[in-house]
Amino acid sequence: MSAEIICVGTELLLGDILNSNARWLAQELAGLGIPHFYQTVVGDNIERLQKVLAMASQRSSILIFTGGLGPTPDDLTTEAIALYFQTPLKEREEIVSDIKAKFAKRERKMTANNLKQALLPEGAEILPNPNGTAPGMIWQPQENLTILTFPGVPSEMRRMWEETAIPYLKNQGWGREIIFSQMLKFRGIGESALAEKVKAFFDLTNPTVAPYASNGEVRLRVSAKAKDQIEALAIISPVASQIKYLAGLDYFGCDEDTLASVVGDLLRQAGQTLSVAESCTGGGLGAMITGSGGASDYFMGGIMAYSNEVKISQLGVAQESISEFGAVSKEVACSMALGIKEKLKTDWALSITGIAGPSGGSEEKPVGLVYIGIAMPNNAVEGVKFLFGEEKQREFIRYLSSCSALDLLRRKLLVGV
Amino acid sequence: MSAEIICVGTELLLGDILNSNARWLAQELAGLGIPHFYQTVVGDNIERLQKVLAMASQRSSILIFTGGLGPTPDDLTTEAIALYFQTPLKEREEIVSDIKAKFAKRERKMTANNLKQALLPEGAEILPNPNGTAPGMIWQPQENLTILTFPGVPSEMRRMWEETAIPYLKNQGWGREIIFSQMLKFRGIGESALAEKVKAFFDLTNPTVAPYASNGEVRLRVSAKAKDQIEALAIISPVASQIKYLAGLDYFGCDEDTLASVVGDLLRQAGQTLSVAESCTGGGLGAMITGSGGASDYFMGGIMAYSNEVKISQLGVAQESISEFGAVSKEVACSMALGIKEKLKTDWALSITGIAGPSGGSEEKPVGLVYIGIAMPNNAVEGVKFLFGEEKQREFIRYLSSCSALDLLRRKLLVGV
Repeated sequence: MSAEIICVGTELLLGDILNSNARWLAQELAGLGIPHFYQTVVGDNIERLQKVLAMASQRSSILIFTGGLGPTPDDLTTEAIALYFQTPLKEREEIVSDIKAKFAKRERKMTANNLKQALLPEGAEILPNPNGTAPGMIWQPQENLTILTFPGVPSEMRRMWEETAIPYLKNQGWGREIIFSQMLKFRGIGESALAEKVKAFFDLTNPTVAPYASNGEVRLRVSAKAKDQIEALAIISPVASQIKYLAGLDYFGCDEDTLASVVGDLLRQAGQTLSVAESCTGGGLGAMITGSGGASDYFMGGIMAYSNEVKISQLGVAQESISEFGAVSKEVACSMALGIKEKLKTDWALSITGIAGPSGGSEEKPVGLVYIGIAMPNNAVEGVKFLFGEEKQREFIRYLSSCSALDLLRRKLLVGV
Repeated sequence: MSAEIICVGTELLLGDILNSNARWLAQELAGLGIPHFYQTVVGDNIERLQKVLAMASQRSSILIFTGGLGPTPDDLTTEAIALYFQTPLKEREEIVSDIKAKFAKRERKMTANNLKQALLPEGAEILPNPNGTAPGMIWQPQENLTILTFPGVPSEMRRMWEETAIPYLKNQGWGREIIFSQMLKFRGIGESALAEKVKAFFDLTNPTVAPYASNGEVRLRVSAKAKDQIEALAIISPVASQIKYLAGLDYFGCDEDTLASVVGDLLRQAGQTLSVAESCTGGGLGAMITGSGGASDYFMGGIMAYSNEVKISQLGVAQESISEFGAVSKEVACSMALGIKEKLKTDWALSITGIAGPSGGSEEKPVGLVYIGIAMPNNAVEGVKFLFGEEKQREFIRYLSSCSALDLLRRKLLVGV
């Protein structure tokens, strides 16, 4: 028994959107321990949809469709499924009235094309959509085959999955033995260097250990098969501990941990506060820090000093240092950090000034050059130079800058100033 | 002749990462006018990789693999391809020396497992990887079938595609007739309401018009088939103009345009400047504004006033308004906007204060409640209330808050204060 995710939408084939639904559903299936070996993306095309159905219904027993349930003429998923199993579509009164009610509530009139969403194959159950007008279906068109359909809008799909699909699947006896994974996250070490350090673990079968790099972050996934999470954790823990020991400070957290949440926890434990001063990241570091709720325990705020005027007037950076060393320099980074620390009276302060590109680079100061300043509780300050590489994209350089600033603070918090 | 994208990686099946490679390659194929009807994701499993090869090599003539070229034992793509076509792997001297040189340059020693990356099937050409140690291949294992392999690391894959794969494909005579699309973007109108307005265009065949919603943004894609971009634009333009006319102010831009870039252009034209004061977004609005290079022309900076102390000390918000109306209120939003406008002496200022959740909501002030303030050149100020919905995720509420602030400014800039 295995599931297969089938995402329908020409916008996916044209690359207009990222397939975030496939990722989210994959995580859910892994959590339920429902094996899942294939994902397919196909366009809003009735013939190719049926070809995919023909293949998928042979190799998988649960087909999870997302997309193509909308009100517009190019939404064809339901129609294609009904056609493939030669079952007529039937308008469902309860869906019609539900759609009408939803439009009324938002003081809008139902448009004719919304009625299309009330058609489901005969014999299919309605998979209710509390957040939207397009319901899905749960249907067994034949022995050992279950089809679930969801709209492409992530928030609608997720709620439908959690409220209706999960209980249904468990009820069918699926998701009994679980696969539970822990994702170990590292910073400051390359993928193959880490792989070399821990390669002995790659031969294990339960738990399994698998490495990969993701967005400038190196990760190891430790996965165990077990009857429940407690048993799985007991299998994972000893291996995870040995890996953490081998990685030392380069290991920073696991699973939902982010550099921001880890630094936040350390600050909370220490009862210390943080402020930031940002130039090229323009608020990205602050946004990263406040990405996890509860940041108000330690994050006071900061200043986006995008222009030199603001660096001078708000952070007390000396006009001279800008003229002598340039806005992108260790000296300016340091005085930005000291400036915001003093202004917001925090224990720690981080600053970022750099050249994120695509323009603005020079022979001597290339795109990707970033200085990060860290001001410490004892009012000592350090400036660190980073060269993220001219070939990198602006957004990635800005992202790496914020991560590196947080990692710098993390190491200081761990080893003491 | 059509291409197929095959992404290899258990991390994709476990949902550990988003499949950004599939999206990027899809955009590239569309641009080259190479039809592409299927995307497949399969794990690092030698049997299933071969099953996918069997199917894909029948329905497509160009197979584009990403992932599974790394140095670790679970990287199996090359091996699986060689095995399926019963061709031995051969170590390539030039790859070995290239890998050694790269490690030397980074003052690191090559690890034994990197040698694995030097093995390619006999007869396959090397697809060089300037940014990394894992090269890909270009191989015709049989009539009318071309296989290209790329590492999963996006920056490496992209450069290899641009520098080697595109010239190769064009050289083979592919990508002659192009499909060129324009993506029209809207804010402030629902998908089906827009569809209703423009439904007459959905029956067109060249250009085609297709709608969909993406992350709180409604879009219409207008695509033309033509011999070159100029011809395509001539086909698209008249339709695009009619659609823009029908949508009025709800249309904000197309293709690479973002609310930030559109607002930036309007500010640049008006020769006006902007500053921001952010509470719950913690810098996200500033980061969005500075996401496009050249923002220094109009964006001075701002303050992340995450704590009330900072709202009071740095933005001059009255303690009384916070106690009387709460930090999340129209009054505080307005005085945050006026405060930062005055402090940084800008023409415009935007402020955001709200409850992004997951905690902190109440009966009277639920999660998703956000007030946005806008201070105008004439020093008038407005506060606008938004209810993004309690069911929404923290990051999405923060994202919608920044977008809504920019859209508010956009409309003011267009219609005049």
